[in-house]
Amino acid sequence: MEQQLLPEEVRGRIHRLQLAMGHAGIEAFLITQHVDLYYYTGSMQAGYALVPLEGEPTFYVRRSVDRARREAAVRVEPLPALRIFRAALELDYPAVFATGRAAKIATEMDVLPAQSFMKLAEMIKGEGSSALVDGSALIRRIRMIKSPWEIGRIEAAAGIVAEALTEAANVLREGLSELELMARIEYELRIRGHVGAMRTRSYNMEIMTGMIGSGEAAAEPSAFDGPAGGRGLGPAAPQSVSRKLIKRDEPILIDIGCCVDGYVIDQTRTAVIGCLPDELAAAYVHSEAIIHRTEQLMLPGAVCETLYANSLQMAAEVGLSANFMGFGADQVRFLGHGIGLEVDEWPVLARGFGDPLEPGMVLAVEPKFTFPGQGVVGIENTYLITDQGPRQLTRSPEGLIIVP
Amino acid sequence: MEQQLLPEEVRGRIHRLQLAMGHAGIEAFLITQHVDLYYYTGSMQAGYALVPLEGEPTFYVRRSVDRARREAAVRVEPLPALRIFRAALELDYPAVFATGRAAKIATEMDVLPAQSFMKLAEMIKGEGSSALVDGSALIRRIRMIKSPWEIGRIEAAAGIVAEALTEAANVLREGLSELELMARIEYELRIRGHVGAMRTRSYNMEIMTGMIGSGEAAAEPSAFDGPAGGRGLGPAAPQSVSRKLIKRDEPILIDIGCCVDGYVIDQTRTAVIGCLPDELAAAYVHSEAIIHRTEQLMLPGAVCETLYANSLQMAAEVGLSANFMGFGADQVRFLGHGIGLEVDEWPVLARGFGDPLEPGMVLAVEPKFTFPGQGVVGIENTYLITDQGPRQLTRSPEGLIIVP
Repeated sequence: MEQQLLPEEVRGRIHRLQLAMGHAGIEAFLITQHVDLYYYTGSMQAGYALVPLEGEPTFYVRRSVDRARREAAVRVEPLPALRIFRAALELDYPAVFATGRAAKIATEMDVLPAQSFMKLAEMIKGEGSSALVDGSALIRRIRMIKSPWEIGRIEAAAGIVAEALTEAANVLREGLSELELMARIEYELRIRGHVGAMRTRSYNMEIMTGMIGSGEAAAEPSAFDGPAGGRGLGPAAPQSVSRKLIKRDEPILIDIGCCVDGYVIDQTRTAVIGCLPDELAAAYVHSEAIIHRTEQLMLPGAVCETLYANSLQMAAEVGLSANFMGFGADQVRFLGHGIGLEVDEWPVLARGFGDPLEPGMVLAVEPKFTFPGQGVVGIENTYLITDQGPRQLTRSPEGLIIVP
Repeated sequence: MEQQLLPEEVRGRIHRLQLAMGHAGIEAFLITQHVDLYYYTGSMQAGYALVPLEGEPTFYVRRSVDRARREAAVRVEPLPALRIFRAALELDYPAVFATGRAAKIATEMDVLPAQSFMKLAEMIKGEGSSALVDGSALIRRIRMIKSPWEIGRIEAAAGIVAEALTEAANVLREGLSELELMARIEYELRIRGHVGAMRTRSYNMEIMTGMIGSGEAAAEPSAFDGPAGGRGLGPAAPQSVSRKLIKRDEPILIDIGCCVDGYVIDQTRTAVIGCLPDELAAAYVHSEAIIHRTEQLMLPGAVCETLYANSLQMAAEVGLSANFMGFGADQVRFLGHGIGLEVDEWPVLARGFGDPLEPGMVLAVEPKFTFPGQGVVGIENTYLITDQGPRQLTRSPEGLIIVP
């Protein structure tokens, strides 16, 4: 059964957002995205949440008001028509929205479509000169640090992925297609409570439970912003599984996740029926070496881009720079990514991310090596950063999965 | 195997877009969304497609350039860094982008996030005063009319949904949970080639294969913009299936779709183990009466909002206005919706849609009645509008599915 989010949890999140707003000179935050609404109210019903710099937030709900009232840990009101929404905000939050004031109101410009943004900005402006500005970085920074409750949800997802992988390993055989293997994994995930989607924040990014890629199909370049997108079912689904039949002695990359109570997990294991070619077997060992070295370095205070640079260095030392995290022009430039309600959270282990790791961050780390025409090998674990170092949340045993 | 999109198909689409741009005074269209990119280039790789008012389009690709070159029916170039993208556009399309010109360039402001829109608008502006404006209505209007090739893809999806429903009916029994039944349906859809996602265009809208709702769980209000969203697995997945066990003598609404070669289908049937309460059985008959009357009216030239008004009238005549398309405050205000690459396409059978039906439109029509505490009954078919009237694309037999 779904674990209910506690009101204190929501109040703590709102409090941290208000602190961040104070530092940024923002007087109110208009939250619009369904995932952010869930995070900051406890309910994912349709509408807008207004978080003032001081005082109580209000979730203005289009539908369902009844359901939002049952779920939300904040005040719920019916959302008025857009043309009178500002008047309602003036009544509810006069200190921010009084006529003639020039307040800075933030929203999530990283996800809110331009058309809706323009309408809301016009509404916010009113007769005065209040401005709707980008507050998405504030939202994303707060969401980086997970609470014990959130970590429990991610652990539940991790347990389900481990069980589904065990089931999959039992049915894995020569001649099964990637699609058939994935259908079985998705069934096992779903009956255990996977909500059926892995939410992403980036425009145009889609994840359908992850990918299974065997042999050369895994090594095909793709639009997907990850080290191995997969061949996919065709130009209109150009990533993840294909109908390719799994063969002996080729790597089978099984990169899967699921979503439980809104929280996602990400895990990759490499399997083979028979045995891997020597070069790929060696590369797999290197991927484990990189993840284990990264584990030693993932202490609070460690700088994200330094961890990425270290992995590049290790790949270079074994002569596999061109194969690391994709091949050639299609390489991606990161080693790992934050994960929580969305798969593509902060921080990112990549150049330009100069922030230090902090306790409570949850990161998927995924060193992989691509060999065009042959396949992809690698490993991915999800970790919680603690004062004592990383605690692994993914549960499947490490090492190659070898089917005789 | 995936049906390849033909180059002539893409050329026809580009030609229609250029005609529409001419009427709207738009000199170039910058296409950014992955679904629109697929529609107008034949490839869903990451990047931007530039369609000039006259001449050949270019797909500027971030990754994978190789894959885009294999798939696209238009010229493919590597996407330059944003700071030099305008210079590249000036070279490739001097008539539009010459310094100092004030051209109107369109993009999809209905889906493009505000943050990316602002960056692209700044880039487009350059040293002059060219403006990036909203062209999403142009894109959506052209996509309303499906080609024979597209209709073939939707028919393929319809066939798969019908097969999956037959399998589901075979396993349907008392005590099975909604989630278990959906997991089985999803497995059957997936092994037949469902790409694993039902794409939507609306902000925050999610569809996970549809919904199965039994008894009171189907009748719970939800944020979902449809007549029956379903209870869902909890506040972080507040729609579609729940863990409720299916009981005798309650309606089981099975609203499912799938996506084949990018194209989606939508179909609803009502099932029952045993028999429905009289009131709900009567309402189910009314839903069939409304869909059959709508079929008679769905001729080219029929006005969308008139079809909706007719359905409201029919619901009123049998005293079921309060139950039609949701209940009370949570009713939705439409009878049907366009469908194609996305589930929420144009036109919509709703007030305010004064456009006439045209041959080539594909619409899902879904009269449903909600009884709080008891359940939802109804039917949904997807139709192609032809000169001779609607041709049904969904294939499952009509009528209640009765399990003894």
